[in-house]
Amino acid sequence: MQQSSVKPIYEGKAKQLFPGPESGQYIMRFKDSATAFNAKKKAEIENKGALNLRISSKIFEYLQKNGVESHYVRTINEREMVVKAVQIIPIEVVVRNIAAGSLCKRLGIQEKIEISPALVEFFFKSDPLDDPILTDDHIRIMKLATPDELTELRRLALKVNDLLQSFFKSLDIILVDFKVEFGRDKDGKILLADEVTPDGCRLWDAKTLDILDKDRFRKDLGGLAQAYEKVLSRIEQGHA
Amino acid sequence: MQQSSVKPIYEGKAKQLFPGPESGQYIMRFKDSATAFNAKKKAEIENKGALNLRISSKIFEYLQKNGVESHYVRTINEREMVVKAVQIIPIEVVVRNIAAGSLCKRLGIQEKIEISPALVEFFFKSDPLDDPILTDDHIRIMKLATPDELTELRRLALKVNDLLQSFFKSLDIILVDFKVEFGRDKDGKILLADEVTPDGCRLWDAKTLDILDKDRFRKDLGGLAQAYEKVLSRIEQGHA
Repeated sequence: MQQSSVKPIYEGKAKQLFPGPESGQYIMRFKDSATAFNAKKKAEIENKGALNLRISSKIFEYLQKNGVESHYVRTINEREMVVKAVQIIPIEVVVRNIAAGSLCKRLGIQEKIEISPALVEFFFKSDPLDDPILTDDHIRIMKLATPDELTELRRLALKVNDLLQSFFKSLDIILVDFKVEFGRDKDGKILLADEVTPDGCRLWDAKTLDILDKDRFRKDLGGLAQAYEKVLSRIEQGHA
Repeated sequence: MQQSSVKPIYEGKAKQLFPGPESGQYIMRFKDSATAFNAKKKAEIENKGALNLRISSKIFEYLQKNGVESHYVRTINEREMVVKAVQIIPIEVVVRNIAAGSLCKRLGIQEKIEISPALVEFFFKSDPLDDPILTDDHIRIMKLATPDELTELRRLALKVNDLLQSFFKSLDIILVDFKVEFGRDKDGKILLADEVTPDGCRLWDAKTLDILDKDRFRKDLGGLAQAYEKVLSRIEQGHA
């Protein structure tokens, strides 16, 4: 399907949503845009969208096989996947195994220290507010999720973390941290949504500690697409 | 006691600590300095220190009478009180009954909406980091307080809130929110510490909604000392 002439239902920084082949479905199209620091830094990285689509497809399939349901239905071409229509919960759920990035800047925590058990953080998805961090009480007061949903978000995020840690470990990659989003399906069930890609994960080569994620873009290290290709090729050769 | 020639053990934005009359005690001296926005805005407000000392003394006495122990021992002159030496827990504990200030800016919550039950927020006392907000998990990872201490901080903060809401209500003042700090005494017991004054509370006249706290300084409304005098005179004429 060629979407370029169809107006998206929704356009985010790295993806677009179009009407799906069946009711209750969307087509999610991965763009080549890279953004960081709440889109204050932007670039087009050739092939990034296609790489992220393939990485995210593989990860959703792996998680599904291991009991984590997501909005993923199937991949239909090199840019697009069919997903279940869900109501996105406006919370970015971050899980951290090693201290890095905003956690260290924000709280003065030393970089690279191990965090065990993993730390779960919630951020309010709001560009104008710059995605502020949320406590459980904020989520309650702002009615972003019910207390039961919040418990489920935390449980699912930690389950995804356990599964992805093993997955990447078998590929000689360290899962430092990652961001995921969840949505409610038509029955109110919480499903993993959005994408799981090196745009929203910190991934380090287990041997060299090379950075294989969007920090290459944030830190002007270059070689972003090459790093994503490395992640994808390890996934596709797959020890996992 | 005239402290001007003695070097303080500790100097904060609004107070100094000197050696106390007995071991295990300090003298806490209230300065006239007013600061806001992490001391990016500063002024000297004549008489503010003396007013805050008297307000805080009265509040500590009221709380003590109602079962909340603090570091307060006694007032010795118009600028100074004797306090128990405690190890300050580096967490600012904020309790909010009505949405105002940083909560609204940070999360886009509408100003002046009632928050019930009250919201407790924790902030890391760190000028270089600009006092970032903390979740319970951050407090655990950073070892700022044990899980039991954290439970006690929340319990005490909400008890102080209940007591101060009644106290101020009887003086026709609305307690919008307040910030307190706690410390560990030599036996590890958690005591209310620092000060409780209009520097760290939002207080609105219940009839006119006039601002009777440091927001007068933050918002350049003028009349800071006059507002604090109004609070003090209502406390001293005391319906409470």
